[in-house]
Amino acid sequence: MSEKLGFVSDYMEGAHPEIIKRLTETNFEKTPGYGLDPYSDSATEKIKKACTCPDGEVFFLVGGTQTNMIVITSVLKPYQGVIAAETGHINGHEAGAIEAGGHKVLTVPHKLGKLSAADVERVAKGYMDDDNHDHIVMPGMVYISQPTEFGTLYSLAELEAISEVCHKYSLPFYVDGARMAYALASPQNDVTLEDYARLCDVFYIGGTKCGALFGEALVIPKKGLIPHFFTIIKQRGALLAKGRMLGLQFDALFTDGLYEKLGKTAVEYGARIQKALIEAGYPLYLESPTNQVFPILTNEAKKKFEEEVDIAFWEKMDEEHTAVRFCTSWASTEEDTNKVIEIIKANPCK
Amino acid sequence: MSEKLGFVSDYMEGAHPEIIKRLTETNFEKTPGYGLDPYSDSATEKIKKACTCPDGEVFFLVGGTQTNMIVITSVLKPYQGVIAAETGHINGHEAGAIEAGGHKVLTVPHKLGKLSAADVERVAKGYMDDDNHDHIVMPGMVYISQPTEFGTLYSLAELEAISEVCHKYSLPFYVDGARMAYALASPQNDVTLEDYARLCDVFYIGGTKCGALFGEALVIPKKGLIPHFFTIIKQRGALLAKGRMLGLQFDALFTDGLYEKLGKTAVEYGARIQKALIEAGYPLYLESPTNQVFPILTNEAKKKFEEEVDIAFWEKMDEEHTAVRFCTSWASTEEDTNKVIEIIKANPCK
Amino acid sequence: MSEKLGFVSDYMEGAHPEIIKRLTETNFEKTPGYGLDPYSDSATEKIKKACTCPDGEVFFLVGGTQTNMIVITSVLKPYQGVIAAETGHINGHEAGAIEAGGHKVLTVPHKLGKLSAADVERVAKGYMDDDNHDHIVMPGMVYISQPTEFGTLYSLAELEAISEVCHKYSLPFYVDGARMAYALASPQNDVTLEDYARLCDVFYIGGTKCGALFGEALVIPKKGLIPHFFTIIKQRGALLAKGRMLGLQFDALFTDGLYEKLGKTAVEYGARIQKALIEAGYPLYLESPTNQVFPILTNEAKKKFEEEVDIAFWEKMDEEHTAVRFCTSWASTEEDTNKVIEIIKANPCK
Amino acid sequence: MSEKLGFVSDYMEGAHPEIIKRLTETNFEKTPGYGLDPYSDSATEKIKKACTCPDGEVFFLVGGTQTNMIVITSVLKPYQGVIAAETGHINGHEAGAIEAGGHKVLTVPHKLGKLSAADVERVAKGYMDDDNHDHIVMPGMVYISQPTEFGTLYSLAELEAISEVCHKYSLPFYVDGARMAYALASPQNDVTLEDYARLCDVFYIGGTKCGALFGEALVIPKKGLIPHFFTIIKQRGALLAKGRMLGLQFDALFTDGLYEKLGKTAVEYGARIQKALIEAGYPLYLESPTNQVFPILTNEAKKKFEEEVDIAFWEKMDEEHTAVRFCTSWASTEEDTNKVIEIIKANPCK
Repeated sequence: MSEKLGFVSDYMEGAHPEIIKRLTETNFEKTPGYGLDPYSDSATEKIKKACTCPDGEVFFLVGGTQTNMIVITSVLKPYQGVIAAETGHINGHEAGAIEAGGHKVLTVPHKLGKLSAADVERVAKGYMDDDNHDHIVMPGMVYISQPTEFGTLYSLAELEAISEVCHKYSLPFYVDGARMAYALASPQNDVTLEDYARLCDVFYIGGTKCGALFGEALVIPKKGLIPHFFTIIKQRGALLAKGRMLGLQFDALFTDGLYEKLGKTAVEYGARIQKALIEAGYPLYLESPTNQVFPILTNEAKKKFEEEVDIAFWEKMDEEHTAVRFCTSWASTEEDTNKVIEIIKANPCK
Repeated sequence: MSEKLGFVSDYMEGAHPEIIKRLTETNFEKTPGYGLDPYSDSATEKIKKACTCPDGEVFFLVGGTQTNMIVITSVLKPYQGVIAAETGHINGHEAGAIEAGGHKVLTVPHKLGKLSAADVERVAKGYMDDDNHDHIVMPGMVYISQPTEFGTLYSLAELEAISEVCHKYSLPFYVDGARMAYALASPQNDVTLEDYARLCDVFYIGGTKCGALFGEALVIPKKGLIPHFFTIIKQRGALLAKGRMLGLQFDALFTDGLYEKLGKTAVEYGARIQKALIEAGYPLYLESPTNQVFPILTNEAKKKFEEEVDIAFWEKMDEEHTAVRFCTSWASTEEDTNKVIEIIKANPCK
Repeated sequence: MSEKLGFVSDYMEGAHPEIIKRLTETNFEKTPGYGLDPYSDSATEKIKKACTCPDGEVFFLVGGTQTNMIVITSVLKPYQGVIAAETGHINGHEAGAIEAGGHKVLTVPHKLGKLSAADVERVAKGYMDDDNHDHIVMPGMVYISQPTEFGTLYSLAELEAISEVCHKYSLPFYVDGARMAYALASPQNDVTLEDYARLCDVFYIGGTKCGALFGEALVIPKKGLIPHFFTIIKQRGALLAKGRMLGLQFDALFTDGLYEKLGKTAVEYGARIQKALIEAGYPLYLESPTNQVFPILTNEAKKKFEEEVDIAFWEKMDEEHTAVRFCTSWASTEEDTNKVIEIIKANPCK
Repeated sequence: MSEKLGFVSDYMEGAHPEIIKRLTETNFEKTPGYGLDPYSDSATEKIKKACTCPDGEVFFLVGGTQTNMIVITSVLKPYQGVIAAETGHINGHEAGAIEAGGHKVLTVPHKLGKLSAADVERVAKGYMDDDNHDHIVMPGMVYISQPTEFGTLYSLAELEAISEVCHKYSLPFYVDGARMAYALASPQNDVTLEDYARLCDVFYIGGTKCGALFGEALVIPKKGLIPHFFTIIKQRGALLAKGRMLGLQFDALFTDGLYEKLGKTAVEYGARIQKALIEAGYPLYLESPTNQVFPILTNEAKKKFEEEVDIAFWEKMDEEHTAVRFCTSWASTEEDTNKVIEIIKANPCK
């Protein structure tokens, strides 16, 4: 409970007040467990409608690493691996969860956190063309995150190209949408939930970082991708007994466009902070269209900012410079944003 | 949201109002993630104090199967298995989570859901005495649940005997306390949290079934049993980003004796229902000292009760009789309890 | 290199001289590795012919536990377990290999080492009928060994009954034939290799205990049961670089009926020893129709026999009695058999 | 059984005649199984003596991938990964065996197939210095192969430097010696078996590619690195029932310096072929000091050579050029070597 302005990440607060309200109102109701309750049903229907996939399936899980691990290890066959950008969350920040589940992450280079359809094709074709491919790991699916770990966005055209390669090589296409609300809210975005349902085999709409206490909504647009998925979820210890907690939260998030709305202010505040940093002369690690902003600071400026603002270390550039992250969230306020911009203005890059 | 009286299980409602209050009050605070927040610290301290294990460690996990799976697969070496009663939750109701983690459940017969120190010794000694034991699974730890899956209780003497055998054969002793509040609250109980900390190597105090929205508090009385446990939790997808949600709940549960209190009414109401069933002439599957009550009903009586009360199927006894479960919870009311007793009285066993 | 008569097991010697001859003759030939050599091709054809499964697949593996582990973990889905008799080799003598591969062994009671079609049906139907079966391990295949761990045999009628239940519940049926030569050679046997190919989904014809230096021939009568099996074998470290060593051995074993022949003498000598034990008044643990013989000896008789014969401990019956095993092999000689019979005659049961 | 000259790999033939002789002579002896026989004991003693590690342990396994998989997954803790060159056999050619065992391969760049002490330190130190390292895979051991997959050699100084970093960061150091005989026999080599025992925590002396039918001798210089390793070997399906087959072969290889001798001719013939290729004007992919030789051929030259010699594809360099491998073995003859050199001379690079 720091006294500083909080821009360190988007999972520092509780949940959108609407969610707290719903939890409170329904607290003493008795409903069946394990997601077999009416709130989970309602949330499922709303999400399927938002994605225009009436025949799809929706599963609610607790967290992102859990969702990635379970989806990937369930879709892959034992002799397969998952293609991902080297910067993909599953490759570097999930403590080896995919490997612990028995599978190799087949990395390709990234460009602003994104992999390319061409790289996917290179790996898939390389496998097919290799006479000795029975001795190596077979590419078995493709993982991307949207927005990426760098806050960048795949365009619709990019997603369509990846999807096409995936279909060509029978690779299920999976999108990790931990921060999906901030993608949907970006002025630069041209991809709808309906597009994900059309182009992907499985994707998740993040709750934890987008206004929920916790929870991710996994969407399988064409039902049946993962048989007996309920049991798999149970086996991995990911089945929430009081599953309605997940249903209630996503039901709230998908009522009256709340999910899109709460991403919007975060992205606006992020854009304002980014603009202020540019105007103050700070170079950017990369230009971000979403709620994460990455200036490169001198050691002195970093120290100065950190006296008043909680921000995150990103990468040491050289002895004198460090890339940091300012991260807004659904809970960021205009007041705090104005304050941080004042601080930036008061400390221009020298 | 059934119109019937709800006695089907103890995870049908939300959370104790005190918890909802705390979540609401703190909702907009910004705290570090992953359990590194002041509420988790505070809950940890309170639990360590309640268990009188100042040098212990406390970890908060989301659910019971998750906790069992992670603890057991982390404590066991690859060549070891876990000894459990054949009725143990890990053996029959967790979808093979222990085996999915690479380990055999070494089952022993149960008596009212309990294993005996003698059976543990038989397995451990049998392994030691077997000249070919290098070809078989080595017993590597002991699992029990308290209260058991049948609502029964190990006495302090029984736990001490098991603990002694465990130490003799260097077997870590693990207690699954998913319903621990109802054990602590039973008039028949003679085991304190301090006793668990003294006798066990690791145990958990259940939240999900005992008044929390979700969550289990894992206690390792002597720190260091599982090195790098934080990373293991992350790798298994069990690390909650907004870890303070767990901390807050257990902080509330361990403030002013709330945890003991909420178990107490549940056990009292359970005892009253059990008494009413006995007086109405129903035989019991077994006599329960906690919040689960198991009468054997004729098909006709079962049908009759189910018209007005949600109860759980337990076991088919023969063509004419079925054991069922009436389960009270922290949220059961005196009013509902009185109503169900009236229904029992009105439908005596014929 | 004990001076005693050797009846302790059937893997104490090298290989049938015909195999040694073939290895020697072909030693300097250069052939492709990994089983892609002409000898493996030839052996495959001979086995497919012997089993009358022209469209089947044959894979050569090094050992029995390896074969069981790879087959079972490849056929099962992550949420499934394998049904086996509690005495099945995979349950008690393979160091938890199936569980290490992620799967539960669902045990059923045995009768003389055999499970029954009725027990398989009970488990499969019990799963189907259980309203909560999404929380438990799904039966996914059936494992038996023929001859069993006790040397007993399933009759053709018994196998047909099991096969029928397996088809009814879509459970692949797997037969572990580690000692298959001794089954085929038993006067009591009424099951042919063609029968296995007709009734099973996968089975193996043992080499290690039946005259080879090592090696098991896995037969999948209808090709395609396990896609990418070559890669799976490689991944589990079970792909022999000089795969022709396996092909050569099975090519020899399946030339001129060698495999049946070498089982025959072993079974005959076993029967003679069993007869001698009965005549000398020794009770049997069970009556064996194959190469393993199980008398119950007094401590005194056991000590006496062990002075001159290497035999195996089987089970302690009580303080005064122990079941032991006399095991003949393809390498047992008439001379040694006569000698052991003389010893038995000289030491009748008192 | 190609009519061509055979230089495609070093596992195309059977075994050194001395091994065949020993197998034949001892064929009817009866010995205990699972490596508990006098030949395995004798081989163990000879290897410990050759390595000057009297207190070490030796285990015999069947193949290289099997050995790598079992050693690495046994040494690593669940939250750890293994550092290897990106070209390491475990990373690219073992079908994901390490990941299937639950662990990430942490790759570093290679130089001629070798990793550097500096790169190991960079990864180890990077982990230590990362404030968020609890969320990532911990480096847990170091894997190299000697000779490397490119036939190159680490010098003693390089191994000492790696060993030093390993000790500094408590990383067990593992050397894969699948082709160790060819390393020991190289004129460029300055590392003895004693050095490996001094510098490594575990390494294996390859048999499969060095004159045995199959088999690798794993050496743990200081006993106790992997507790219950026998059971682990059994559990992974890698325990050979007739373990003496491994003992006999290594006993022969370590009698009268046979292992060093058989590497020597192979390396000499390789050097002569490499010299001929250079003199014929062919560029090398890299210069090899062992039994693998890597010229870059034009498509035309490749086609020409392949009419008369079996060689291996290595890497496509561009549309017109391909790197190939000529591989000699313990079984290569002077006559064949002369013939291949004549063919090279007759087809100089244009």
